[in-house]
Amino acid sequence: MRAEIVAVGTELLLGQIVNTNARWMGERLAAIGVDVVHEQVVGDNVDRIVAALRLAASRADAVLVTGGLGPTGDDLTRDAIATAMAVGMVRRPELEDMLRERFAGFSSSPMPLSNLRQADVPEGARYLMPERGTAPGLVAPLGDATLYAMAGVPGEMQEMMERFVLPALAGTGDAVIASTVLRITGMGESAVAEVLEDLFASSSTPTVAYLASMGEVRVRLTAKAVARAEADALLRPVAAEVRARLGDVVFSEDDASLEATVGELLQARGVRIACGESLTGGGVATRLTSVAGASAWFAGSAVVYTATAKHEVLGVPMEVIDGDGLVSEACALAMAEGARRTFRAEVGLGLTGVAGPAPHDGVAPGTVVVAVAADDVRHARAFVSRGDRERVRRWAEQAGLDLVRRYLQGITLPVSSTTV
Amino acid sequence: MRAEIVAVGTELLLGQIVNTNARWMGERLAAIGVDVVHEQVVGDNVDRIVAALRLAASRADAVLVTGGLGPTGDDLTRDAIATAMAVGMVRRPELEDMLRERFAGFSSSPMPLSNLRQADVPEGARYLMPERGTAPGLVAPLGDATLYAMAGVPGEMQEMMERFVLPALAGTGDAVIASTVLRITGMGESAVAEVLEDLFASSSTPTVAYLASMGEVRVRLTAKAVARAEADALLRPVAAEVRARLGDVVFSEDDASLEATVGELLQARGVRIACGESLTGGGVATRLTSVAGASAWFAGSAVVYTATAKHEVLGVPMEVIDGDGLVSEACALAMAEGARRTFRAEVGLGLTGVAGPAPHDGVAPGTVVVAVAADDVRHARAFVSRGDRERVRRWAEQAGLDLVRRYLQGITLPVSSTTV
Repeated sequence: MRAEIVAVGTELLLGQIVNTNARWMGERLAAIGVDVVHEQVVGDNVDRIVAALRLAASRADAVLVTGGLGPTGDDLTRDAIATAMAVGMVRRPELEDMLRERFAGFSSSPMPLSNLRQADVPEGARYLMPERGTAPGLVAPLGDATLYAMAGVPGEMQEMMERFVLPALAGTGDAVIASTVLRITGMGESAVAEVLEDLFASSSTPTVAYLASMGEVRVRLTAKAVARAEADALLRPVAAEVRARLGDVVFSEDDASLEATVGELLQARGVRIACGESLTGGGVATRLTSVAGASAWFAGSAVVYTATAKHEVLGVPMEVIDGDGLVSEACALAMAEGARRTFRAEVGLGLTGVAGPAPHDGVAPGTVVVAVAADDVRHARAFVSRGDRERVRRWAEQAGLDLVRRYLQGITLPVSSTTV
Repeated sequence: MRAEIVAVGTELLLGQIVNTNARWMGERLAAIGVDVVHEQVVGDNVDRIVAALRLAASRADAVLVTGGLGPTGDDLTRDAIATAMAVGMVRRPELEDMLRERFAGFSSSPMPLSNLRQADVPEGARYLMPERGTAPGLVAPLGDATLYAMAGVPGEMQEMMERFVLPALAGTGDAVIASTVLRITGMGESAVAEVLEDLFASSSTPTVAYLASMGEVRVRLTAKAVARAEADALLRPVAAEVRARLGDVVFSEDDASLEATVGELLQARGVRIACGESLTGGGVATRLTSVAGASAWFAGSAVVYTATAKHEVLGVPMEVIDGDGLVSEACALAMAEGARRTFRAEVGLGLTGVAGPAPHDGVAPGTVVVAVAADDVRHARAFVSRGDRERVRRWAEQAGLDLVRRYLQGITLPVSSTTV
């Protein structure tokens, strides 16, 4: 099964937006074993859209079109499909009803008559009733290919892909697709792939895809079956095997972020966290508080960029600052202890280091120390991260959050790989 | 002048990375008046790359190719260009020298001989010596079109576009392109465009492009001329007119971020800032400390998520907490004063509010109060932001940083548009 993605929209060609739809679709299609062989982007011009659809239909089994299904004059995908099929348009009353009803739901003005264009369906095509937005999807035969057209709004496209298009492409008839994502920190993508390789060598379902970014690796498992329960039954043992082989580096088996995972663990234990941040500059606090409901388990964070603030706000002893130094295991531990005390929290996380680009006080850029402190733990870890300022800060956040995660789960805490 | 972008790389089709290169190139090409009419993405397969190049050359004047110029076996763009041109390959000794020299610069191992593939140039094509990375660019005639091939690494592609390809496309021969970006907060994209519209209606240079995101509008002005000085001379009066028409909402005339602008103003005045953050959860501190050299003007931030922390860490009086409430002008001012005091900084910024999704203590989600305090200022501003949690937090950061920017520039401070 070969697929081609055609994105319609002059705003993409002008660089006003980035084509994140193509990335999302590519990942999901790969997961069900559909090869995306080409992608095209074309502007809001009927002739060019028609040519793009014909070219795609000549070389792919499935053509996935996004964008150009809105109600305005520059939404031309419907017309282009009818032209490519050489058929006329039929206005569907049930779609008119849907449009009037939804319009009334978000506006008190009368609906412009031109919006009824969205109720038009090319002869010989089927429509897909949208659950989000107002743009019906279209399914149309074109040459030997099947064309699936969806709205360009990411949420609307994703909804229609998951509910209809992916199952249709995954198998014949009413296949169901289920997927699960395991998230990993502290192990690189190629090492993860090597550990898992043979698991997916012999069987065609579940399939596996790896996605690495910003100090994490995501492993997506996807299974297809005739019913949801069967797809889940295919996934469960494989996910368990992946988890068993990778071990403690897996922090989530349901695509939860590291900060959400830490929050859940804190909530389950009924304790709160506070941070003392130097090189991360508030990044850990920003991530923790991005989780809705964080106020139940997040007490606060002191971003202490200076020696004075470390001493006065977090109570880092002067003998640590003058003796061990601002980037040391002793300082990170004192920051973690100070954060607990200052914000009256059970768990403290301290992060210090040199984000770069220049060395600071003789310490090399990329040097990071993180520490966790609680009544039953006092543990620091120093390491050197490569990369630019942004990357060093991100890896420090990951290492700090992961240290807390491991402490709360009662598993091995990683030790220093450098001395400072 | 019509251009087409061809991105080469199976990782794009698999959705492992998003095609940000196309967005960057589209924006820059639009700025010099070059129409991008199509984009294609094709995998690492010689036959398909050749077909994509031929199709592009049949309908565009300039074909911009990214990716596939690396040293490994799946880098096939060079071979595809030679095949499309029906010519052989010539190995260039000066490129071999460059490769050996750069390889020695980042590795102590001997360079694999296969890396010398990067010294191959199709007969009849020219190469572009890279300033970054090791992949030479290629300029080749193909039918009536000219093909420009560049590395897929964004920084390497951008360097080659700015130094060579954009000037080549901007005019005949040695045209130079200069552009400048004004950044605006506190005014919407359509309002900005309306104020400026007539300025760009009659003349073809400079051109204007608008890009709105995350509480900011960027106005890019681009001019082409035969020499840098002339392009700058074209830009300067128009940029001044744009600045004059828009007034105080312009915070940068050289594409500097809001946080960098605030940092520059603090540094110029020789004062330091400290923050007290509630709903932004450390976001302001994260942005300020992302600026290299921030330690000269950033003292620290207290992320105080609880009433207790606001009182104990920042000294917000209990009568403010119990009387005015945690989301009030009095509380934001007390947080700003407390941050100054706690971190011994001259300027304090306080941010409180309800990020949502649920109301908090009877205050509606989206309610934001920001305040600035220093020896000569005590000013708070309350407003209601629409949107989800992430958006409310971002708008609070923008409003807080902009309040400090306006105070430091000695211009009007915006007043509350709601009462809390």
